[in-house]
Amino acid sequence: MTGAGGQHRLGPQRNAAIDTAVLDATRELLIERGYSGTSIDAIARRAGVGRPAIYRRWPSKAHIVHDAIYPRLTRPEGSGGDVEEDIALLAAGAVELFGSPATRAAVPGLMSETRGDPELHDLLVDQPLAGVRDELRRRLDEAIADGRVRSGIDSDTLLDVIAGTAIFALSVRDVDDQHRLAESLADLLLHGVLAD
Amino acid sequence: MTGAGGQHRLGPQRNAAIDTAVLDATRELLIERGYSGTSIDAIARRAGVGRPAIYRRWPSKAHIVHDAIYPRLTRPEGSGGDVEEDIALLAAGAVELFGSPATRAAVPGLMSETRGDPELHDLLVDQPLAGVRDELRRRLDEAIADGRVRSGIDSDTLLDVIAGTAIFALSVRDVDDQHRLAESLADLLLHGVLAD
Repeated sequence: MTGAGGQHRLGPQRNAAIDTAVLDATRELLIERGYSGTSIDAIARRAGVGRPAIYRRWPSKAHIVHDAIYPRLTRPEGSGGDVEEDIALLAAGAVELFGSPATRAAVPGLMSETRGDPELHDLLVDQPLAGVRDELRRRLDEAIADGRVRSGIDSDTLLDVIAGTAIFALSVRDVDDQHRLAESLADLLLHGVLAD
Repeated sequence: MTGAGGQHRLGPQRNAAIDTAVLDATRELLIERGYSGTSIDAIARRAGVGRPAIYRRWPSKAHIVHDAIYPRLTRPEGSGGDVEEDIALLAAGAVELFGSPATRAAVPGLMSETRGDPELHDLLVDQPLAGVRDELRRRLDEAIADGRVRSGIDSDTLLDVIAGTAIFALSVRDVDDQHRLAESLADLLLHGVLAD
């Protein structure tokens, strides 16, 4: 339980305490009941806050779940000097991002909601991914120009592979060994299946 | 509209006509309203059949949607002589399977429902994929033994990559050029990104 408690106790930390209580409650409910079983009413009860306090902060369940499972995505660090390391880090990062219990439970339901709502899709999918997408394209173009990466490699497909594989392996096949998944994915992406 | 019409018209074809009407109506509703907007009531109305007729055939919405969007998966044809062709065919097959408008609309919602229900997951995910999974493992093992495929390639990860990429590209990124997606995926899987 993660109740924010009575408002009289909260004082100056009131906003942050409610945010934390709501997001903690959301993660707990996702793990216990899945995406469709996690309602705003249940989140409010579990967090010990009123529905109006939630609706002042988030316009819908999808927005809450998104904030509860995804950290702010930032552009990958580093200068892009080593494409092997970049891709290994991206694969490991995707497996970590989609690998927590709440995220595994939530992602397919969130995909389903954003699929049917172009505005939500823009806000929760396209905008957060834009920085990663641009940076990956820039690094691949550089590595292609340097002869380290084959020409014709499409950075959007590469991002589909990394995100799609992590989601399918973790939320559908439900693999346990996340370290091995990340290594196996990076190896496949870098070298392909064919022997030389 | 795909109504099965009054039962007096159906005669000996009654069962097949109801099945067809229900599955056609389901595909139409998925495209129009998405997974969460497709209810059994709406399917019954659109198909022109009663709810009991539906429940006699399918125990839940997930079962109907599954039958409406997925053909029976069969083991891949051929002797496994050419691993490049096998992987190109698998990539093209996954893009085709997940590429129809109804399937793109339905897959994330269906993933979310099967995720929370182990019995449903076994029936709608593990069992249909088992034949493809076994055959891919057999062919990869053969190709590894022949020196055509690198040792250590994991066939389960390969299937995650093929299915996950197709689902993410088609249902999340919403790509238009399916032919290019399939080619780009097969190329990446066979050769990897690194230049020799």
